[in-house]
Amino acid sequence: MDKSNSLISPEIQEILQGENIAQRLKEFFFDMHSYDVFVLCEDLENSEVAQCIKALGIPTGIELFQEFDDERKEDIFDCFSKEWMADILEEMASDERADFVKFLPDEKLERVLPLIARAERIDIKKLSEYKEGTAGSILTTEYASLSPDITVREALEKLKRQAFDRETIYYIYIVDSNRTLIGFVSLRDILLAPSHNKIEDIMHKIVISMHVDDDNEIVAKKLSDYDFLAIPVVDDGNRLVGIVTVDDVVDVVIEESTEDIYKYGAAGEYIDYMKSSPLQMARQRVVWLILLIFVGFISAWVLEANSFHIKTVVALSFFMPLLLGASGNAGTQASTVVVRELATGNIKIEDLFQVVKKEVSVGVIVGTIMAIVVALRALWLDENPKVGITVGLAMIMTVTLATTLGAFLPILFKKLKFDPAVMSGPFITSIIDVVSLLIYFRIATLIFG
Amino acid sequence: MDKSNSLISPEIQEILQGENIAQRLKEFFFDMHSYDVFVLCEDLENSEVAQCIKALGIPTGIELFQEFDDERKEDIFDCFSKEWMADILEEMASDERADFVKFLPDEKLERVLPLIARAERIDIKKLSEYKEGTAGSILTTEYASLSPDITVREALEKLKRQAFDRETIYYIYIVDSNRTLIGFVSLRDILLAPSHNKIEDIMHKIVISMHVDDDNEIVAKKLSDYDFLAIPVVDDGNRLVGIVTVDDVVDVVIEESTEDIYKYGAAGEYIDYMKSSPLQMARQRVVWLILLIFVGFISAWVLEANSFHIKTVVALSFFMPLLLGASGNAGTQASTVVVRELATGNIKIEDLFQVVKKEVSVGVIVGTIMAIVVALRALWLDENPKVGITVGLAMIMTVTLATTLGAFLPILFKKLKFDPAVMSGPFITSIIDVVSLLIYFRIATLIFG
Repeated sequence: MDKSNSLISPEIQEILQGENIAQRLKEFFFDMHSYDVFVLCEDLENSEVAQCIKALGIPTGIELFQEFDDERKEDIFDCFSKEWMADILEEMASDERADFVKFLPDEKLERVLPLIARAERIDIKKLSEYKEGTAGSILTTEYASLSPDITVREALEKLKRQAFDRETIYYIYIVDSNRTLIGFVSLRDILLAPSHNKIEDIMHKIVISMHVDDDNEIVAKKLSDYDFLAIPVVDDGNRLVGIVTVDDVVDVVIEESTEDIYKYGAAGEYIDYMKSSPLQMARQRVVWLILLIFVGFISAWVLEANSFHIKTVVALSFFMPLLLGASGNAGTQASTVVVRELATGNIKIEDLFQVVKKEVSVGVIVGTIMAIVVALRALWLDENPKVGITVGLAMIMTVTLATTLGAFLPILFKKLKFDPAVMSGPFITSIIDVVSLLIYFRIATLIFG
Repeated sequence: MDKSNSLISPEIQEILQGENIAQRLKEFFFDMHSYDVFVLCEDLENSEVAQCIKALGIPTGIELFQEFDDERKEDIFDCFSKEWMADILEEMASDERADFVKFLPDEKLERVLPLIARAERIDIKKLSEYKEGTAGSILTTEYASLSPDITVREALEKLKRQAFDRETIYYIYIVDSNRTLIGFVSLRDILLAPSHNKIEDIMHKIVISMHVDDDNEIVAKKLSDYDFLAIPVVDDGNRLVGIVTVDDVVDVVIEESTEDIYKYGAAGEYIDYMKSSPLQMARQRVVWLILLIFVGFISAWVLEANSFHIKTVVALSFFMPLLLGASGNAGTQASTVVVRELATGNIKIEDLFQVVKKEVSVGVIVGTIMAIVVALRALWLDENPKVGITVGLAMIMTVTLATTLGAFLPILFKKLKFDPAVMSGPFITSIIDVVSLLIYFRIATLIFG
């Protein structure tokens, strides 16, 4: 537990045990950002958090509720009356709500749903249908929009009325009567324009928008390329469905790079390190480890089949870890680069041939340099020059094969609609181990007979 | 080259070769976002880009200039007259300018500096002194600020005047006469407040701010926790120095996770994949590979010293790649998790003991499971049960040591002020190779005598 918590929580608990709870909580949390309130309340009992939420009311209490993760949200949710549950679902930001509703068990949702206003019910249903990881799944429907034929003065009045429940009023989207997106203005544009101007005269007619099915990472890239605070999301008919705001994208980017990095390290799903037990962590990691051991069995089998070589020329075994390590490293480098460039859209599936060609060249170059270093060492270690030649030749070939596989396998995985990030780190090195051993002993057979 | 480029570039080139260039370019680019203009101009000659920038003028041309990377910026910069160079530096966003100025060779900068207004000169000097990777290095000084004693109506008037050259006017920071940060309001707050109210009455008095020396990743985390569009940055005296906007942070987050991922894969510095030659890529990667080969030499030396064992019990060598692979994977998992949690601030240096204790437990758990699987396989492969016992015991010990080192080394690196991300992937596996071999043969000596 954090030191700041153990200092402040007693204060809240004292309030919770005293009289006039709602009023005193409200005063205590006055003007605090919901994230700070969240930090203070994080370690309270679920029912106490529910009390704080009720005391803070709408909208501050709802903001506090939104700070918790889905599991905790569900636990807190269970402490409320059915009416409060309905209120919370009605008042949550539409993107937060869509996530939470997807997480809630159906029977719980169905008990509350009849109490929710029809418009919100439709919104919940629509948003929860979008696929995880797409623009549809992170968009919010609380955007500001205006029609093109009103004046700047009228627009400002309308915006003041919309301001309360919109995620942002700094970008305003202009839609026609079919809700087709035809332009946008920023609040800055409106403030600076003469008040009798028509919106259609000051609006930007070229609108960058995303499709509901676009990938989150592409949305993040677009927002970052254009330095937007929000980007509109449209359906097949170019009708405005919602917006994705940059603060949600920051969360997505941080979350997805953690996910990617865990996949690179074959470390299983992310779990909170400081809060998890060794057993929980072991469970996350052991699956991959066991799986990779079975790949390792193939290595053992290759070696057994070639035990004759090791018995006759024991020096061949000295360089095995070095050779496997080196080709594993070269493969890891290639797959790291290719997986990352695939994720950021810099390499596409169609580039397969070009990428593989490039990696073959890179492999030959670095493999030859490495081969020279290792061959010299082998010649110096062993009086038999044949060992040096075998190791050197094997190094060029295994490293080249490693960079090639490191590039090819992630792209193949992407093509097969698997996640290319899986094809890196431990996974690629285990495969390269097997292939490298086969090459090594094939060359040994040729040279030693 | 992109297909869209080869379609549109000729149009621009046709304009560049015709008459009335400036006017026609301006019409062609009308209402386009600077990023789109950038995409269209990317493959033009530097002098042609300079022409486009001049044609677009201030501020659109400057925005276009800012889209290019530092190297290209310098090349384009060289095509301008001294007066234009000064104009560009004066008009660039202060954070963009600080980066570019740091990149420019001193002699070039000194030729232009005397032509720049004094206020901007001081700003350039101050901002370029902040360390890379800190809030100071990405802040902009173009923020909107107000004093607390004016009315909402006066504030709105002042903001309209500030709107032209501020990065954002959606958050307004309230400073006293010493520029000490005492509060903030959003433009939304101002729009919704009665126009005769004082700013000090509507402002939020609890301001979340960062220090100029704070790490970029911490700034990103704060912005994401609080869902802010911008965060103020103060100096030691709590005086407002500038703001960091969320769009700059998205860039930083994407960039830094690429950097981190490259370090995990020991893949060298990031270079654009599709635009680099195999030789350039080989140069990025070969340094790490050679370095790690020298670690591999230690493995070879350990094996040579233990060649007696391999000669007498050749089956011991069959399980070497499997054992090294398995402990390498377990170490990679641990270091991946620890490095990531260090980066997001979830694990701190002070947690060293707790983390290491946890990883020892994880190592014993997963190591034992893996040992059982491998020992069974070894017993089945080889009639000599001693091999199975050796491999099994070694597996428990090497895997435990691997998870422990995987956690310990990144934290040690952080403590020594090195980048912990280096201590993962290929680096950690190479170290684990050596240690695992030592353990393996030590156990073999004990069991086989």
